[in-house]
Amino acid sequence: MKELTLVKIGGKLIDDESKLSASLEVFSKIKGAKLLVHGGGKLATDMAKQLGIDSPMIDGRRITNTETLKLVSMVYAGWINKKIVAGLQALNQKAMGLCGADDNLILAEKRQHTSIDYGFVGDVTAVNKEALSTYIEQDKVLVLSAITHDGKGQLLNTNADTIATEIAIALSENYQVKLIYSFEKPGVLIHPDDDMSYLKCLDAVLYQEMKENGTINKGMLPKTENAFKAFNKGVDVLIGDLLRMSGDDYCGTELIACK
Amino acid sequence: MKELTLVKIGGKLIDDESKLSASLEVFSKIKGAKLLVHGGGKLATDMAKQLGIDSPMIDGRRITNTETLKLVSMVYAGWINKKIVAGLQALNQKAMGLCGADDNLILAEKRQHTSIDYGFVGDVTAVNKEALSTYIEQDKVLVLSAITHDGKGQLLNTNADTIATEIAIALSENYQVKLIYSFEKPGVLIHPDDDMSYLKCLDAVLYQEMKENGTINKGMLPKTENAFKAFNKGVDVLIGDLLRMSGDDYCGTELIACK
Repeated sequence: MKELTLVKIGGKLIDDESKLSASLEVFSKIKGAKLLVHGGGKLATDMAKQLGIDSPMIDGRRITNTETLKLVSMVYAGWINKKIVAGLQALNQKAMGLCGADDNLILAEKRQHTSIDYGFVGDVTAVNKEALSTYIEQDKVLVLSAITHDGKGQLLNTNADTIATEIAIALSENYQVKLIYSFEKPGVLIHPDDDMSYLKCLDAVLYQEMKENGTINKGMLPKTENAFKAFNKGVDVLIGDLLRMSGDDYCGTELIACK
Repeated sequence: MKELTLVKIGGKLIDDESKLSASLEVFSKIKGAKLLVHGGGKLATDMAKQLGIDSPMIDGRRITNTETLKLVSMVYAGWINKKIVAGLQALNQKAMGLCGADDNLILAEKRQHTSIDYGFVGDVTAVNKEALSTYIEQDKVLVLSAITHDGKGQLLNTNADTIATEIAIALSENYQVKLIYSFEKPGVLIHPDDDMSYLKCLDAVLYQEMKENGTINKGMLPKTENAFKAFNKGVDVLIGDLLRMSGDDYCGTELIACK
């Protein structure tokens, strides 16, 4: 099967102008079919404050009211997405920025929860892998923001790690997918404050232990959960920092099967 | 030649939620190949005020500093573009929202002017008609915002009427293009305050007269200039309000050749 590298960038890699452009440079050198999914960084949070929009977080997930949805659609699908596209075009990449509503790429439904109303938060229900594959076969480099839609006219806010995972799983039917979750750390850390303590590889047994003893917590939890979800469906997964990788030397934490 | 209907919507049709969705409904019923270009309405101006961003206008053109560029990219390429796409998807249109940077669709250069620095305002230098035609032939309904790029990583803010004109001209080599500039008026008015006074047709002689006696002025000037530019390149042009049109009954001011 043809290889496809899917990179998700987020966190401080998005906020920092020079780190973002360095990440795009590394991304542009990845050979073969590739696709970029990006998060939002903290610009949306900063702007919400400036505009007096209340935007609480529960378990690392933003509660999305009408005003927040408008703001994240602007920031993620507008500024960040188009800035990345223009940056990649300058690096001779055939970049094209889309969100889940475009070409009905990612269909979602408003999150159902017994006690918490997450507002306009979407859980993915379908990935249009035919459309995605068509663009990939036309050598386009898709740049996807994590805004989805319900097919009835409603935009929804979805976690970018989840988008990366769902797309990786959907495309793994047609491609050998390598999924890289890139963020500001070199990988999954044994000691959260020590970057040198990153794991070269992680299997489900060690993962379970690290969750139970609290080593993996907060923002790392949904990331690693997403990572194992993709891994369990046959996707090659690496968690690390694109800026510390070069050429085929993908440093980071690789998910591996239990021995 | 195959027909292509290119609709540009802007002004109050964008600001008013119910008028926007009614416009999308009319647009969705247009048969055959079609494409939508949208302006920004006054949301960007309102948000600039809220955020304390200074954003002066000269001759109906916004001076675009770094902060304004960020804001218009958010509002135009993000919120408005994706809201329109989600709305059209709900109407079973194969809508896909792009800006000029995506797939290198519209290349522009920073405006050169002897005395005024327009900031990050882009004048169109090239339209990627091959890419546009490919999407049209795949039955996609492109939704284009007026954000362009210079190919060197810089996003630029371009007038939406100009984008519509340049695309119409570029595509007129492959299609018989009908270009509709839709806004809140039924057409070009003889008496600016009287909607009933709209012209059924307008030729270059009458247009020249109306410019000279000041009947056509302010925001109507760039629109009519753009309209005649397209008309002179063989594009069928209609200026009017999509909401007053239905089926093949395109009411509005039609540009015609001088007798």
